[in-house]
Parts: sequence; C-alpha cells; structure tokens
Amino acid sequence: MNVRGRPTRTIWVSGDAVEIIDQTALPHDFVVRPLRTVGEVERAIATMQVRGAPLIGAAAAYGVWLAMRSDPSDAGLRTACAALLATRPTAVNLRWALDTMAAALASLPPAARAGAARLRADALADEDVAVNRAIGDHALALIRRLGEARASGTAKAPFNVLTHCNAGWLATVDRGTALAGVYAAHDAGLPVHVWVDETRPRNQGAALTAWELGQHGVPHTLIVDNAGGHLMQRGQVDLVLVGTDRTTATGDVVNKIGTYLKALAARDCGVPFYVAAPSSSIDWTIADGREVVIEERAASEVFGLSGRSEVGAIATVRLAPEGTPVANPAFDLTPARLVTGIITERGIAPATREGLAALFPALSSSGRSPA
Amino acid sequence: MNVRGRPTRTIWVSGDAVEIIDQTALPHDFVVRPLRTVGEVERAIATMQVRGAPLIGAAAAYGVWLAMRSDPSDAGLRTACAALLATRPTAVNLRWALDTMAAALASLPPAARAGAARLRADALADEDVAVNRAIGDHALALIRRLGEARASGTAKAPFNVLTHCNAGWLATVDRGTALAGVYAAHDAGLPVHVWVDETRPRNQGAALTAWELGQHGVPHTLIVDNAGGHLMQRGQVDLVLVGTDRTTATGDVVNKIGTYLKALAARDCGVPFYVAAPSSSIDWTIADGREVVIEERAASEVFGLSGRSEVGAIATVRLAPEGTPVANPAFDLTPARLVTGIITERGIAPATREGLAALFPALSSSGRSPA
Repeated sequence: MNVRGRPTRTIWVSGDAVEIIDQTALPHDFVVRPLRTVGEVERAIATMQVRGAPLIGAAAAYGVWLAMRSDPSDAGLRTACAALLATRPTAVNLRWALDTMAAALASLPPAARAGAARLRADALADEDVAVNRAIGDHALALIRRLGEARASGTAKAPFNVLTHCNAGWLATVDRGTALAGVYAAHDAGLPVHVWVDETRPRNQGAALTAWELGQHGVPHTLIVDNAGGHLMQRGQVDLVLVGTDRTTATGDVVNKIGTYLKALAARDCGVPFYVAAPSSSIDWTIADGREVVIEERAASEVFGLSGRSEVGAIATVRLAPEGTPVANPAFDLTPARLVTGIITERGIAPATREGLAALFPALSSSGRSPA
Repeated sequence: MNVRGRPTRTIWVSGDAVEIIDQTALPHDFVVRPLRTVGEVERAIATMQVRGAPLIGAAAAYGVWLAMRSDPSDAGLRTACAALLATRPTAVNLRWALDTMAAALASLPPAARAGAARLRADALADEDVAVNRAIGDHALALIRRLGEARASGTAKAPFNVLTHCNAGWLATVDRGTALAGVYAAHDAGLPVHVWVDETRPRNQGAALTAWELGQHGVPHTLIVDNAGGHLMQRGQVDLVLVGTDRTTATGDVVNKIGTYLKALAARDCGVPFYVAAPSSSIDWTIADGREVVIEERAASEVFGLSGRSEVGAIATVRLAPEGTPVANPAFDLTPARLVTGIITERGIAPATREGLAALFPALSSSGRSPA
C-alpha cells in the first residue's frame, strides 16, 4: 500500500540485507531497518518491530535465508528454525512458514540452501500478497452485499466497519487480511468508514491501523476498546471485520485480546462478525480453541505507555501506582458460534469444520482427527 | 478509607474552604485542594478533580454552600444550581443533590441559607457514607453466598471480583459503592482478590482503583479492558461488580463505557453480574436506558495519555498519528436483561421495575409512569 504516495511492502530484500519497517516507531517515525543475521530477525520478531501473523511468517522465512548464508548445515537449519519458532508462541503462520522452508531445504545439499532459501522466501512473500488480494476480493463482495441489504435511505451513508488491532497491510507483506476488503471497497469507490479500536495494551489500532488507513486515504475514527459495544447498540456498525492469529479446524478464532468481547456485542446487536483468515492461519490439527496456548506478555505493556511527548520525543509514561500487580494475556478465543463467517483466499466459509474443509479439502484432511 | 494508614474521606470542610483530593494527580501525587467559591467547585467537577456520581453530588452540595455565602438571594440560588448542574450531563446524583439543596433552602430567608446549606451538605455527605456501608453489608452477604456455592476444592482460593472504572471510595465520600463490598469482605477476612480494568480512556482503574485497593491492602491485579472476557472464559472471575452513573426505574444501567461488554461476557460465561446502585443513582423518571443522553468527551482523552515519565514528571504522550479523527462516548448502557441484581442500601433487587419498586415504594411512585 501507499506510504507518502509511494507503493511499499512491509519487508523486502536490499543487497545482502532484509529490510523491514520498524513498526515500534510508528506512527511517529517511518524507520526502515536492515536485518543481516538470523539473530536480528529473531529480535525483530520478539520485540514486535515486525508483527502480524502473515508478516511474522515472511520474516521467519527470510530469517532462514540469512541463517543458511552463515551455516547451511543440517544442524544450522534445525537451530535456526527452532530459534525462530521460539520468538512468538501463538501465530501458526510462523510454524507454517518454517515448516515450508525446512521442507524445501532439507533435501538439498548445504551449498545450495542459501540460494534456494532466498527464492522460497521471495515466493512465500509474493504468495502472501496474492492470498490477501483474494481475501480482499471476497470481502469486497460481502461489503457490497451487506451495503445493498441496508435500508434504502442509508444507501449513501458510510458503510461502517469496526476492526480490532491491526490486520492491515502492516500485519502482512502487503494489502492486509481484514483491511484488504476495506482497501478494495475504498478503491472501488464505496463510502467505507472504519472504527479503529485502539487495542490496548500495545495500541496497534491507534498506532498502526489509524496510520495506514490515513496514508491510504480511507476515512476512519479512532475509539477506545470499550466503545465498540455502544456503537453497535446505536446501529453505527455495519460489519465487524478482524484478523486472526490462529483459527482452528472447527472455526474457533484466536485473535488479539478483546476480540471475543466485540464478537459478543456483534451477536447481541445483530451485527455480522467476520474473520479474515488466510489458510496459513488455520490450524488443522486443533479442534477446540481452548487448546491454544495464550501468550502472556510483559506487565510493562499494561502499566506503561509509549508515545510522542509534547516536546516531540518518544516517552514512556506510567499509569498505575508503583508495584501494582499486572496480568497481560495477549490473545483471546472467540468461539465459532459467534463467528458469522471466515473469509479465506478461496471464499467465505461458515465457521464450522465442514465449512472450512469444503474450501480446503486437502489441507483439512492432513490434520489429525478430532477427539 | 485509609491513605498511608490514616482514615480519610474524599471531601471535607476545613475552615472556610471545602477541601478535596485532586484525583487527576493520583496515583502519582496525593494533593489536597481547597475550594473557596462555587466557580472553583464547578471547575473541580468539570475537570474531574472530583468524579464519581456520589462524590459529584456531595461536591455540588458544598458548592451550593459556597454560593450562598456570597449571594444567598433566590437568583443566586437558581444561578448556582444551574451552573453546577451543567458541569456533567450524565450523573443523576448531581441533579438529586442539587434538588435536595434547593428544596431545603428555597423557603428560608436568604440570611439563613448559608448556615443551613452547610448543615445540609454535611448531612448529605454523612448519608452517602451510611448508604455505602449498607451496600457493602449486602454485597458482603452476596460474596459469602457465592463463595460458599463454589466447588468445595476452591473454598480457600481467592474469590475473584472483576470491576470496571472506579466505584471505590474515591468515587464517593467514603467506602465506595461497588468496592464497599470488597472492603467489607477483605475486612471480614475473606480471601478476596480484584481484577482491575484499567478503564480507558481516562484510566480510572489503573490510576484510582489500583491505588485505593493498594492503600487498603486488598490484593488486586491490573488488566487492560480487553482482558476481562478471556479471564471469565477461563473461570477466573467469580463476580463482576460495577457501579453506575444512572440506573433507570426498570434496571437498565448506564455506567462507564465498556461496562456493557463485561456484562455480555459475564452472561456468556455464567458469571454473576451485579451493579452497586445507591438509590440516589436511580432515575425513577426513565423507563428505557436508551433515553439517557451519553456524554461525548474530548478527543484528547483518547489520543493522548498522561502518566509519570521515566524522569518522574507528569507527561502526556500522543499515541495516534496527528489529525486522526476520534469518537469518545463516556458511558454505555447495560440492558437490565444482562444484570443479575442491583445492590442498593436497602438490599439486592432483581433488575426489574417491580424489584426496584419493592425496595423503594415511595421513590418509585414519585417517578412518571412508563410510556
């Protein structure tokens, strides 16, 4: 998508380095960082300089490339994949990308691995963009259909999408997952407007989603996470559209903490709740979302907040009394029963085992049987 | 309740001034501010140096006292009440306190009004404390009952209360409304633990609830507003207990934005959801919560946050890109159907017209008939 009018991806190769947009500096500064070793990639993922399930997958693939340049042995490949896998526990794309890389490289002689890894990582990044474009096309059709179904007097009113966290192009290589449909609708001339949940504790909505929508010129309004239910009660939301870090074979959705609360409000208010899920984020081995380990992150994310101070520097302020105990679960589980549909690159499925399997018969049969 | 081990109220008279704890300086600094004119009281309410529906009522009553000292005429009384009423649009206690003061003073000769206002305001503050003690006793009985009903193996595990915003002693003259029961349980030796929603955008949970629970020694854990649903899904919440800015005659609850989302999660997870509502916060003239005007507050509350910086000063940081549009509704509506019970000073009522009227027959019959 556009940054200052110029088409930009979130990750690319420049010379011998992988370059990324440092998302911890947004929205205040646009900083490109070169990564030259697998350790630098691990650090970039762990510190969330790159974040978002699809982008983490692409970054890990490029991390394997960097690792193969310095140690292309079997042990080097195993070590690199294990270290990259340990950077974030929840995103299934990470494991999927590493499995893909390992499968492509393991049978090659070590001397051929670095070159092959580069090609495979490039392909994986391009595939992500193609998948997101397809998700965007299906979501656009959904938005058209929901917009036409509204009362005739509201045909020209903005079509209001509420989203949580950042499932935009910054979370992917390009286009985004949940926001792919918003961009497609906006580019098609539909009057789409986005309610942006700020998404505590890391404020990806305020910092990233608001920034990227603004860069692309999509009308949007920032709200606190507490406000979405009220807006739905008042009829000011036509569609809730979120991404996912991991969706089970049965349609249970693990996504940023707080997603479940929005799904409950959508159900209570009769608002459609859709999840954009590339097939790489579907975990065919898990039948019940309660099995997914939920990452607990640092207390400092909750009691402190970083932003630009009145004098222009980046500062962290403390909100709570010294010594206050904190819990910080990073994701929650939205049960399939609350999900109206799952938007994949192959179309929109009901949030059921049968619905997902019908779109992805080969992938679904590769998973273990449900208990 | 205790501040640094010393029993303290939130508002009191010292010499010719009303003194308050400046709640905008908490939790970082404990600042007492004298208010000497009704204008200073208006400013203290509007800027939320005093906040919380019951405390706003008491502050307004003392504001009338200060006004009567300088202009005890009929016009002076009318002007003071109108100006104080305009400081915050949602809290019904404000109107109730001003009506009480006006009724007590209007028939007196102007020369007698200042003295009578002081006595009436003192009585109103003492009544608030008595009401909150009664609410605390009823909530303690509820906590005992719910605790005993848990599986026997969990008898010694902490009894987990989740609360939103600050309905503690800082929101009242003393004891609190929702937290009155927590303090009563803690003081009775029950192993109570509180999940404290930080409560964006103003962070009253992180700044005030965490502070006052810590001062009184009640175990608590700070969480982001997004986390409560997840904790309820995992069985880590035994009771949701919140305050209210205004409850209708039919049990619809207007409270801090985000309360509705917690009520939905409680219903979905089978967790009891109770509202502590002194009768002064019940609006007997309103049958449907959707009639309540929801205050829209400043955008700056959403895109910026104040706290203590790493160098110890209070700083405000900006989270979102410059120019991002913001919406900031301050309250939402939890429909009576989601409320397990309403804890009043006269006992616990079901959230129905009949339930509330049975506890307050005289008050309820004073309200207008439902449409």
